[in-house]
Amino acid sequence: MTKRVEIYDSTLRDGAQAVGISFSAGDKLKIAKALAGFGVDYVEGGNPFASKADAEFFRAARSLELGRTRLAAFGATRRRGVSAGEDPSVRALLDADTPVCAVFGKAWDFHAVAVLGAGLDENLTMIADTVAFLKSRGKTVVFDAEHFFDGYKDNPEYALRTVRSAAGAGADVVCLCDTNGGAFPDETAEMTAAAVRALPGAVVGIHAHNDGGMAVANSVMAVEAGARQVQGTFTGFGERCGNASLSQVIANLQLKRGCRLVPDASLPLLTQTARFVAEVANVALSGREPFVGRHAFSHKAGMHIDGVRKNPRSFEHVPPEAVGNERRLLTSESSGRSAVLPRVLRVCPSATRESPETEAVLRRLKELTGDGYQFEGAEATFELVARKTLGLYRPFFEVRNFKVITEQLPDGRGASVATIKIAVDGREEITADEGEGPVNALDKALRKALGVFYPSLGGMRLTDYKVRVLDGSDATAAKVRVLIESADGADSWTTVGVSKDIIEASLIALVDSVEYKLMKETGG
Amino acid sequence: MTKRVEIYDSTLRDGAQAVGISFSAGDKLKIAKALAGFGVDYVEGGNPFASKADAEFFRAARSLELGRTRLAAFGATRRRGVSAGEDPSVRALLDADTPVCAVFGKAWDFHAVAVLGAGLDENLTMIADTVAFLKSRGKTVVFDAEHFFDGYKDNPEYALRTVRSAAGAGADVVCLCDTNGGAFPDETAEMTAAAVRALPGAVVGIHAHNDGGMAVANSVMAVEAGARQVQGTFTGFGERCGNASLSQVIANLQLKRGCRLVPDASLPLLTQTARFVAEVANVALSGREPFVGRHAFSHKAGMHIDGVRKNPRSFEHVPPEAVGNERRLLTSESSGRSAVLPRVLRVCPSATRESPETEAVLRRLKELTGDGYQFEGAEATFELVARKTLGLYRPFFEVRNFKVITEQLPDGRGASVATIKIAVDGREEITADEGEGPVNALDKALRKALGVFYPSLGGMRLTDYKVRVLDGSDATAAKVRVLIESADGADSWTTVGVSKDIIEASLIALVDSVEYKLMKETGG
Repeated sequence: MTKRVEIYDSTLRDGAQAVGISFSAGDKLKIAKALAGFGVDYVEGGNPFASKADAEFFRAARSLELGRTRLAAFGATRRRGVSAGEDPSVRALLDADTPVCAVFGKAWDFHAVAVLGAGLDENLTMIADTVAFLKSRGKTVVFDAEHFFDGYKDNPEYALRTVRSAAGAGADVVCLCDTNGGAFPDETAEMTAAAVRALPGAVVGIHAHNDGGMAVANSVMAVEAGARQVQGTFTGFGERCGNASLSQVIANLQLKRGCRLVPDASLPLLTQTARFVAEVANVALSGREPFVGRHAFSHKAGMHIDGVRKNPRSFEHVPPEAVGNERRLLTSESSGRSAVLPRVLRVCPSATRESPETEAVLRRLKELTGDGYQFEGAEATFELVARKTLGLYRPFFEVRNFKVITEQLPDGRGASVATIKIAVDGREEITADEGEGPVNALDKALRKALGVFYPSLGGMRLTDYKVRVLDGSDATAAKVRVLIESADGADSWTTVGVSKDIIEASLIALVDSVEYKLMKETGG
Repeated sequence: MTKRVEIYDSTLRDGAQAVGISFSAGDKLKIAKALAGFGVDYVEGGNPFASKADAEFFRAARSLELGRTRLAAFGATRRRGVSAGEDPSVRALLDADTPVCAVFGKAWDFHAVAVLGAGLDENLTMIADTVAFLKSRGKTVVFDAEHFFDGYKDNPEYALRTVRSAAGAGADVVCLCDTNGGAFPDETAEMTAAAVRALPGAVVGIHAHNDGGMAVANSVMAVEAGARQVQGTFTGFGERCGNASLSQVIANLQLKRGCRLVPDASLPLLTQTARFVAEVANVALSGREPFVGRHAFSHKAGMHIDGVRKNPRSFEHVPPEAVGNERRLLTSESSGRSAVLPRVLRVCPSATRESPETEAVLRRLKELTGDGYQFEGAEATFELVARKTLGLYRPFFEVRNFKVITEQLPDGRGASVATIKIAVDGREEITADEGEGPVNALDKALRKALGVFYPSLGGMRLTDYKVRVLDGSDATAAKVRVLIESADGADSWTTVGVSKDIIEASLIALVDSVEYKLMKETGG
C-alpha cells in the first residue's frame, strides 16, 4: 500500500537563514508559485513577527493562487507571563492571515531552562496555550518540537511530555526537529518511533538539519519509523550546513520506498524546479547535487560509459528522466540529442533525433555551454541560436559600435553616458543616452536608436536583470553571465549573454531580447 | 571500548573521476602527503593500468615519505581467459610497486553476465585467482566488491559467494561497494551485517557513493553493523554525486560514537586538511559543508545568536574547535545588539551592550542594510563601518576622480580603459590601466596608483568577485551589491559595495578591501 507523506517546504523561512541568501518579496512569490506548481503540501512563507519583509510578503501573498498547497506562517510559542492572545508574536501569526500556523517550542529541558529561563511545567503550558489559542482561531497548527532529539537523549520523558502537550492541545502535526543537525539515522528512527507510540493518532513530522551530513538519511529513516510529514528546504539551503533537501527526500522515498509525497506527474519536474529555486535564490547548485545536479548522471570513467551503454542500470541508481535530469557521457558526442530535439522542432519541424539539423544545433550549444552559457530558463536565446545555426535567421539590425563612459564628476556624483551606432538595411542611426550606471545607459541608447526603425519596441520593457560571476577566483577579470527578462504585455522571455566584460555580456543579452521581440512580431 | 576503524582515502583515484578535476602528478604528491600527515591508513593513488599519469605518479611516489600511511594501487580482477600473472592490468599493479593493491570484482550477478559476459562460477574464479596471485607476491590485498548492495538485493546468495571467494583466497580487507550510490541506511546496515556474519575473522569495509545523498549515513551505519574500514574521498568529490566524505565520516564516528579512525591530535586539523585538498583540486568547497565549511558554525538568526552566546551547545552539535573550524555570528537585518557587540568590542574595547557606541554602530548598520548592504560574510567592511562611525578611522588615501571608457573597437573587439586620480597626504597620483571589462580596468588602475605609496599592496590579490542584483525588476537600472574577497597569504577578508552603477559598487568594495589591508598592517 502506498504510504502518503506530506511535504512542508521552508525554503522561504529556514532557507532564508542561509548565509548569502536574501529574498525580495518578489523572489518569494515566484518560489511559492513554483513549489505549489510542483505539488508540495505546505509552503512556509516566513516569520511575520521577526521580519517586516516577511509580514509584507504575507500581505502580497493573499492574492496568490496556490491550488491545494497551503501557506504557513512561522513563529514562536507565547513568551512567559502573557497570554497567547496578547503575545505580539502570536498576534503577528494571526495578522499573516494564512490557513496554517507553525509554532516552535522547546523540547529540550536544558534549553527551556538555560535559554528561555522558564520552569519545566511552565514551558509545557506555554506550548499548550499557544496551540490551543491558534486552534480556537480556526488555524491548522503545526507544532515544531525544537531540539526534540537532543532533548530526548538528555531527558526522554520530558521530551515526550512536550510533544504530548502540543498534541493534547489539538496540534494537527507534531514535528520532531533535529535543530542542531547532529543526529544519526539509527537514533532518529528509534526516537521517532517512540514519539509515534506516545502520540497515538497524531501526524508526526521530521525536521532535520544537515550538520552531520545526514539530514536526508535521517528524514528517510524517520518516515520508515512512522513520520508522515517531512520538513526541509527544496534544495537544502538553510542555516549553517542547511536543512534536509526535500528534492532528495522526495526522490528517494517516492522512487524507492513506495511512498507518495507529490503527484507522480511532478517527479519529472524535480530537476527544473530545484534549479529554478536556486536561480531565484542566486545560489549556485552543486553539479554533484544528488538527483538534480548537472553531473548527477555524468559518466566520466571509460568503464562506466561502456557499462551504461550496455545497460543504464549498471551505473545509475534511477533513470535520470524519472527526475527530469539527463545522462551525460562526457567523452561522447551522442549525449543531449533527446534533450535538444523538442526545441529544434520548434524552428525546424522536419528535424529528427539523427538529422543533421539536430547535430548542428547540438554542436553549437556545446560550444556555447563550454563558454559559460546556460540555456535553462533562457529559451529566447536558445531559439535564436537554433535559428542562426540553421540559417533561419534574418538580422533586423546590426550594432556597428558603442562607447560607454562612466566617471566621477567633480561634485562626487557618478555619471554614465553611452553612444551607439546601429544600422538597419544599410541606414545608420547614431545616438546617445545617459543612465544609472553603464549598462543602463547602453540599454537606453540601444533602444532609442532602434525605436527610429521599430516603434513597437516602445511597448517592451525589461523586467529582470541578473548577474552571475562564473569563476569568482579570477576576481574582477572573471567571466560573467547576464540574464535579462523582458516583457511586452502579451509575453515574457529571457535571454543570456556571457563575457569577461559585464557591459558586453549585458549588450549580448539586450540585443537578443530585442531580436526575439522583433522575430515574434514578424513571425520569424 | 574504543572501536578501531581504518580510513582508506581514494581522493586521488575515485575523486579524480569527478567532473572538473584533473590532478597533475605534483598535485597528487601534495595531497598524498597531506592525507598521510593527517593520519589516514591508506591512500589510493590511482589506476596504473588505465592511466599513464597514474603509473608516473606511482614511480614518483616511491621516494615519498608517508609514515604509517600505506599507498595503494587500484585495478580490476583478471579478465577472462588469461591467468592473473599474464593479465596486463594485474601486472600494472605489481609495477606500481605499492605495499597495497586494491582490486575490484563483480558482486552483482546481472553485472557479471551483462557487462563482463562471464559465467557466474567463472566470475568467482577470476576474483579468487587475482587475490591469490597478489597475495603470493607479498601484497596487502583489498577486494572491492563492486555493486555488492545492488547484487545482494537481486541475489543475496551469489553476492555473498563473491566476497567469500575473495576472503577465501586471502584478501586482507573485503570492501562492500554501493557503486551506484542509491542504497538506504537500513539496508546498508542489514546487508553489511550479513557479510560480516558470512566472513568470520575478515576485515569488512564500506565504500559508499552519494547518489541518494546518504553516503555518509550509509558508511556510519555500516560501521555500526560491523564494518572496520571506510573508503571514500576526503572532501566527498567523486564521479556523479561523489563519494562518502571521509572528513564527515571521521568527525561523526570519532566525536560521537567512540570510534578511533585517526589520531585524536588530528581532528583539530580536519578543516584545514579538507580545505587544502579542495584548494589543490581547485574545487570550491561549499560554505555549508558539514564540519569543515566556512559557514558550518555561522549563526544568522537573532534567536540562534542569543542562544549560542548563552551556551554554544544550544545551536552547535559539536564545538567548532574540535574540528578546527570557527564560530561566526553574522549580522543580518533581524539581529541586534548581541550580534553587533563582539565586533564593536574589537574596535572599541570599552563598549557594552547598552553603550552609545554600540547604539551608533547599530544605527549606521541599519541605514546601510536599508540601502542594500549585507554584512554577513563581509566582516572587513563591517569593521571599517564601525571604525568610521566611531571616528576611529584615519584615511590612507582618497579617490579624487576616475573615468572608465568601454568601447567596441573597429575590429569588433571590446576594450576597457580606466584613469584614476588618488591622493595620499595631499600628494596626488594619476594613472591609467586597461583590463578585461571596466571593473577589471579600474581595479588595476587603482592598485597601480596606490602601489606608488604602499608597495605592500603588491602582496595582496583578489580571490573572489560576486555580483547580486538587488531588485531585478528595475532591470538595468537596478541596484547591485558587489562582494569582493581578498587575500595576502596570511589572511583573507571580504568587503561589500552597493550602488545602481556596478562600476561604483565595485570601486566601493575595492577601496574597502585596500583600506582593510592597510589598516591591518598598521594596526589601525
